[in-house]
Amino acid sequence: LDEAAMRAARERHDRLTKPRGSLGELEELGIRLAGVAGVCPPPLPAPAAVAVFAADHGVHAQGVTPWPQEVTGQMVHNFLAGGAVVNAFARQVGAEVTVVDVGVNGDLPEAPGLLARKVANGTADMTRGPAMTAEQARRAVEVGIEAARDLVAAGHRCLLTGDMGIANTTASAALIAAFTGRAPDDVTGYGTGIDDATHARKVEVVRAALTRARTELPGHDGTAGADARVASAAPLAVLAQVGGLEHAAIAGFVLGAAAHRVPVVLDGVIAGAAALVAVALAPGARDFCLAGHHSAEPGHAAALASMGLRPLVDLRLRLGEGTGALLALPLIAGAVRVLHEVATFDSAGVADK
Amino acid sequence: LDEAAMRAARERHDRLTKPRGSLGELEELGIRLAGVAGVCPPPLPAPAAVAVFAADHGVHAQGVTPWPQEVTGQMVHNFLAGGAVVNAFARQVGAEVTVVDVGVNGDLPEAPGLLARKVANGTADMTRGPAMTAEQARRAVEVGIEAARDLVAAGHRCLLTGDMGIANTTASAALIAAFTGRAPDDVTGYGTGIDDATHARKVEVVRAALTRARTELPGHDGTAGADARVASAAPLAVLAQVGGLEHAAIAGFVLGAAAHRVPVVLDGVIAGAAALVAVALAPGARDFCLAGHHSAEPGHAAALASMGLRPLVDLRLRLGEGTGALLALPLIAGAVRVLHEVATFDSAGVADK
Repeated sequence: LDEAAMRAARERHDRLTKPRGSLGELEELGIRLAGVAGVCPPPLPAPAAVAVFAADHGVHAQGVTPWPQEVTGQMVHNFLAGGAVVNAFARQVGAEVTVVDVGVNGDLPEAPGLLARKVANGTADMTRGPAMTAEQARRAVEVGIEAARDLVAAGHRCLLTGDMGIANTTASAALIAAFTGRAPDDVTGYGTGIDDATHARKVEVVRAALTRARTELPGHDGTAGADARVASAAPLAVLAQVGGLEHAAIAGFVLGAAAHRVPVVLDGVIAGAAALVAVALAPGARDFCLAGHHSAEPGHAAALASMGLRPLVDLRLRLGEGTGALLALPLIAGAVRVLHEVATFDSAGVADK
Repeated sequence: LDEAAMRAARERHDRLTKPRGSLGELEELGIRLAGVAGVCPPPLPAPAAVAVFAADHGVHAQGVTPWPQEVTGQMVHNFLAGGAVVNAFARQVGAEVTVVDVGVNGDLPEAPGLLARKVANGTADMTRGPAMTAEQARRAVEVGIEAARDLVAAGHRCLLTGDMGIANTTASAALIAAFTGRAPDDVTGYGTGIDDATHARKVEVVRAALTRARTELPGHDGTAGADARVASAAPLAVLAQVGGLEHAAIAGFVLGAAAHRVPVVLDGVIAGAAALVAVALAPGARDFCLAGHHSAEPGHAAALASMGLRPLVDLRLRLGEGTGALLALPLIAGAVRVLHEVATFDSAGVADK
């Protein structure tokens, strides 16, 4: 982050016609965005684009969700037709929606707004073997890096993460447990709304996947206590073991945004899990991440806490797609707009206290 | 609230292409707005208008704030010139700003966007006598009712409250203590950012005003325990004793919005205090109120809790002007837009679980 730009934003905040500090977290946000852009005031986060990375999960076979796997591809069609919540929210806040097929199981017809970047027809079942090969994980990360690069090249000044993938909260829980060292039952939630029996199975599936993965990770002594150390040292290896193709792509998307000094708004628990990978690969990427919202999934809070990120919106959403990131966009824009447009005490002829 | 419209919204939510309940509080919000409008889907909250009610406070003489009283009028000029945070946020979310002089001390020149509705040159010092006469309070309430009526007649489908008045968190604390029965030191905050000595004085000022007011309220036995009962029975009398002219006008604004079945988004602690008056006068008005945000002022949470309202945004803002209400507007619009635009499982060809 650019310290001079942050200092300029801090000083500017103190001269604007409002009590000092009265915009609370939005002041801190504006200061950080000045640091991100290296200039004060920072550019408005517009135009903005949400990239919805879609992929399937072999762990679906373990019965972690009542939704059929076909829903991933069906929802991709819904996104492209403009009929999903992510589309409605994007229209509300003036963001563009791009859908990236990084690993949907089955062929999707070409369509405007769809980037065909399929690395595999979904991951393998992480309870039985690695979810991805190292090469697949690396390629999926590249898909995300390139998506960020292309959106920035097209003029976007704020990127938002989105995701679609039936069973992807299961992979998210496994990643979050591995990277934060938390227990599976601490970070595994009810996803789209499962019953208690399915939830209990989901916790066991996450535990089984982690137990299996430990035997294949170099330098792992097989104990849960070593998870976070190994994840930090070999993030791509852990990603390949228990992550999803959309997690890999979102991790790359975060890295790409950071490399271009463009803020990236994280959606919910899938983005939080992916950002852990990105931040383990490049700790500086953390400063370019904004937490859009606080998801109802318990693993999300663990992921955000471990990165020191505070969510902007907290409305018990658990939808994904990028919806929580989109809701935060006007708040972010407001924080920046203040630094552009609000008069100073001097210029407005308002007495300072 | 229209039960049939709410039932229709609930049923519609369950057919949309998203896991049931996955939009959390935004689903409940959409359902309530259907009840407010009496139709599902309810109209989008656009165009929206924020009315900033400005007035001065005689209690300023008690040293409850370091800001000079002249800042109220100076900030009105700033609003009219478009240079305040409320203007920047209104531009961000596409809302119109109207400024209503309901009691600024001193003459303000005519200006586009300024409604000259001055009832008095500020209130009297509530520690020495009633802040307003009964007639002044009644007239200020009417100013708010008429402002709501005129904005609705001009086509606005969502009203937002704003306020400006140096020392108005002191009057807010007194109102909130009276209506909720909470102790002055529970509900009196640091306002624009005062020091501990000033805060201690402010608490004593609120206590002194309430003690004095008890002797003038009909049916009051002089104990703090009777405050909430008397406030509920004679809200306008309590308002006149310890309120502000902008509190009175905002109470009227809430009543006017409710009478026209238009949602009204409350800003922070000043609006919360005023809404207590409105809801005591007409309990049904509560259903038309949305809490825009959770202010850093402690009295605000007490006011919202007593009305059973949950704030949409929580970013430690303590600015007023309508800024917290404006930040909530895109969230409200998103909640409504979902009911208009999102495809159903059937129409999108997405498998339900």
